[in-house]
Amino acid sequence: MRDAKILAAAAAALREPAGPGAALAPQRVQAEPEQLEPYGRDESDLGTHLPDLVVLPESAAEVQRVLAVAARHRLPVTPIGARSGRSGGALPLAGGIALSLERMNRILDIRPEDLTARVQPGVVTGVFQAEVEKHGLFYPPDPNSLDMCFLGGNVAENAGGPRALKYGVTREYVLGLEVALPTGELLRTGKQTIKGVAGYDLTALFVGSEGTLGVVTEITFKLLPRPRHVSTALVVFRSVEDAARAISRVLAAGVIPRVLELLDDTALAACARTAPYKFPADAGAAVLIETDGNDEEQVFGEIVRVAELVQADASGEVIVAQNEAQRRDIWETRKKLSVNLRALHPLKLSEDIAVPRSRIPEMVRRTREIGARHGFLVATYGHAGDGNLHANVLFDREEDRPRVEAAVGEILHAAVDMGGTITGEHGVGLAKRDYLVYEQGEAQVALQRRLKAVFDPLGIMNPGKIFPEPEGAKGAAGKGVE
Amino acid sequence: MRDAKILAAAAAALREPAGPGAALAPQRVQAEPEQLEPYGRDESDLGTHLPDLVVLPESAAEVQRVLAVAARHRLPVTPIGARSGRSGGALPLAGGIALSLERMNRILDIRPEDLTARVQPGVVTGVFQAEVEKHGLFYPPDPNSLDMCFLGGNVAENAGGPRALKYGVTREYVLGLEVALPTGELLRTGKQTIKGVAGYDLTALFVGSEGTLGVVTEITFKLLPRPRHVSTALVVFRSVEDAARAISRVLAAGVIPRVLELLDDTALAACARTAPYKFPADAGAAVLIETDGNDEEQVFGEIVRVAELVQADASGEVIVAQNEAQRRDIWETRKKLSVNLRALHPLKLSEDIAVPRSRIPEMVRRTREIGARHGFLVATYGHAGDGNLHANVLFDREEDRPRVEAAVGEILHAAVDMGGTITGEHGVGLAKRDYLVYEQGEAQVALQRRLKAVFDPLGIMNPGKIFPEPEGAKGAAGKGVE
Repeated sequence: MRDAKILAAAAAALREPAGPGAALAPQRVQAEPEQLEPYGRDESDLGTHLPDLVVLPESAAEVQRVLAVAARHRLPVTPIGARSGRSGGALPLAGGIALSLERMNRILDIRPEDLTARVQPGVVTGVFQAEVEKHGLFYPPDPNSLDMCFLGGNVAENAGGPRALKYGVTREYVLGLEVALPTGELLRTGKQTIKGVAGYDLTALFVGSEGTLGVVTEITFKLLPRPRHVSTALVVFRSVEDAARAISRVLAAGVIPRVLELLDDTALAACARTAPYKFPADAGAAVLIETDGNDEEQVFGEIVRVAELVQADASGEVIVAQNEAQRRDIWETRKKLSVNLRALHPLKLSEDIAVPRSRIPEMVRRTREIGARHGFLVATYGHAGDGNLHANVLFDREEDRPRVEAAVGEILHAAVDMGGTITGEHGVGLAKRDYLVYEQGEAQVALQRRLKAVFDPLGIMNPGKIFPEPEGAKGAAGKGVE
Repeated sequence: MRDAKILAAAAAALREPAGPGAALAPQRVQAEPEQLEPYGRDESDLGTHLPDLVVLPESAAEVQRVLAVAARHRLPVTPIGARSGRSGGALPLAGGIALSLERMNRILDIRPEDLTARVQPGVVTGVFQAEVEKHGLFYPPDPNSLDMCFLGGNVAENAGGPRALKYGVTREYVLGLEVALPTGELLRTGKQTIKGVAGYDLTALFVGSEGTLGVVTEITFKLLPRPRHVSTALVVFRSVEDAARAISRVLAAGVIPRVLELLDDTALAACARTAPYKFPADAGAAVLIETDGNDEEQVFGEIVRVAELVQADASGEVIVAQNEAQRRDIWETRKKLSVNLRALHPLKLSEDIAVPRSRIPEMVRRTREIGARHGFLVATYGHAGDGNLHANVLFDREEDRPRVEAAVGEILHAAVDMGGTITGEHGVGLAKRDYLVYEQGEAQVALQRRLKAVFDPLGIMNPGKIFPEPEGAKGAAGKGVE
């Protein structure tokens, strides 16, 4: 716990009418235990890490005030979105101030003429998507948590989703940012135009920086016209190898579906528990495919083309949705996967690696072997089109967690050894900070620390994230209040 | 001129068998005036700035040697590609070492399975495109100079081109980089996978950094399947306003053509000199449109759809190419524009602004007014789909250049005032460094200088580019050896 006097002084300073930035209304500076508690957790399974204060700014000027007070009192600041992250990026690891963006949730403008929109960071991703669709527009990134996650969190983690294959990840849609820095500046990076190359790409540097450089207070997005039609198909294969071969054939034919979701045998068996289909007895993998576009006939024609291309490798019939109800059936099968896996084994630790697409079968094989060696079943699924796989180590008892973590460590190393990465879309956060050096080397990690120091010389922004702790500090910061 | 002793020592050190990195063969360290001369110019009209030495490394290790020697002797290093840049980014402004990447011109691998390729920086863009097409693949960025420019230069300047509307700019295709830093490290940034979010996006920071942070020695590109069919149309309008309205209607209908090139009345009048078409007497603008895809019928269907959408605003018939010869005719009309403009006025200064698409008519009007006030005709053309306009101030006598530059300054300010940028795709380089603060503000420019210092603490990498010179130094560095 921090010195109570410092915290009281900081809380008072946040509410003072004078000083840099704008003062916060008293009820938006919270220090009661029941107020702090919800801000100590996220969806990462990495325990509870309580902040000392929760502050709820409503403007960039208020965010600047928070950072000024934090800098004066050397208090850590953790920017917090919807707490839906899976890598612990928003856990207030070192206590201090939990800076929640939940009240900065306005869509500022949507410009169909320019195909752009400006938003505050606390807008829920799914709400934003629905709103731009009313204007005939399309915001493609679709992280699994889109019904609850915030756009600011998506920017901080550079979120992806199934549609990334055709449409790219969050980064591809961020034209410009307004960012409050811990040194006091309010920056406007990037541009309001589709193109622009003036100076360094600070916008890209902030996207995916996991709240370690500053606080994003406004985002300008690029949008697309909304594709009017979508076609969906489900194909079952005997093995992941067969599925991978079929996927390569589709891409080689010049078709880029908007979704190419792979399920391995364990994942498929779990799905089979509630699926409206009876999968063939020799089913060892499945792929969910979607094409989209503006012309209904053409979109359906493309999915039929895909079905023809994969038929040779498929086991049994290719299921092409003929209407919206059938389309929903296919997606429900995929969406119930997580629940069905938990019915097999109550606990799971989910990984988020990416490998070059040609290495997918090898990677799925390796994860299975690693799991088996440690005595665990592994279910792998993910975005096969771009090589991003979620390997889920399934287990039954909390006391097995250390062994599960050892298996996960081997899986991460195997991904890097195959030319891949430890995180395709979830971020490093707390969960993977000890693996970053294995992927990038000491020199590159040291360089990134020096870059962080340019933005955050006092080291108050989301400490303990992305980068491994210095040797001496190890252990302390990683421990939660379970 | 630099001290001859220092230069001799540096040249000797580059050729030494011992020392960091690999030694260069003597003939690849050049100091004769006739060897230096070609490396002092580019396509920017900013005069000749001679280097003291030209070095031609053939490997990353040799590049590391050059940087080590430069650091030891505090010699400026200017990385040089094909010298096709239009903003002076590759001019050895402060002398020192011209580090030409022309001998590092190998395509290292092309992987159709992974849709990726690895190249050295000296590969000619057009050569690379032709090579990947042999594998059924597609590298979309198409800067105008693609027959001569290098991929390394494209990365340094984040080059665009007409197809950026649908396919994005160079940045969107760079997955990872190998970069030699002036501090000695050889970094491998980014990833070999389509997705990946580990750590800060150093790759994006290097893309567009104009050789001021380090020397790119290898690039990993993402590729797409090659679209098999292209359809082309040319539409004439009475005014830029009519053209802009038609373009908005096309995009609102959900069609994203791969090309949407706008010509204003002056540009169109120049084109008319050699075009195989007789344009209507009231022609005040034209738009060149291309759609692409895999299905010939569908692609042709889409261009017909576009023709229908723009017909209401068009003046006269929409010309849709029915075959390859007609397609070539349309492009020839566009490609001869520069030559035809020079036939009207022998000199021109070309600008590269971008504005939000909805402001295009206003921007074209403003450039014309600014030109007229200074007594010059302005021809504007460019990539209307993404708001990137090339405003060409036409003039007859070299002594008018200062007045032309004053007009250009006003055009750049007007673009920023409309929410746009001083450079859509050519980079800041030397040409626009004095306008960067107007767009980004002092604080953001100061922050970028601090970032540069992290990579280049001695300030030897391409000095004098992107950022304005400190007050005291002004004037000296900007002068050429005309």
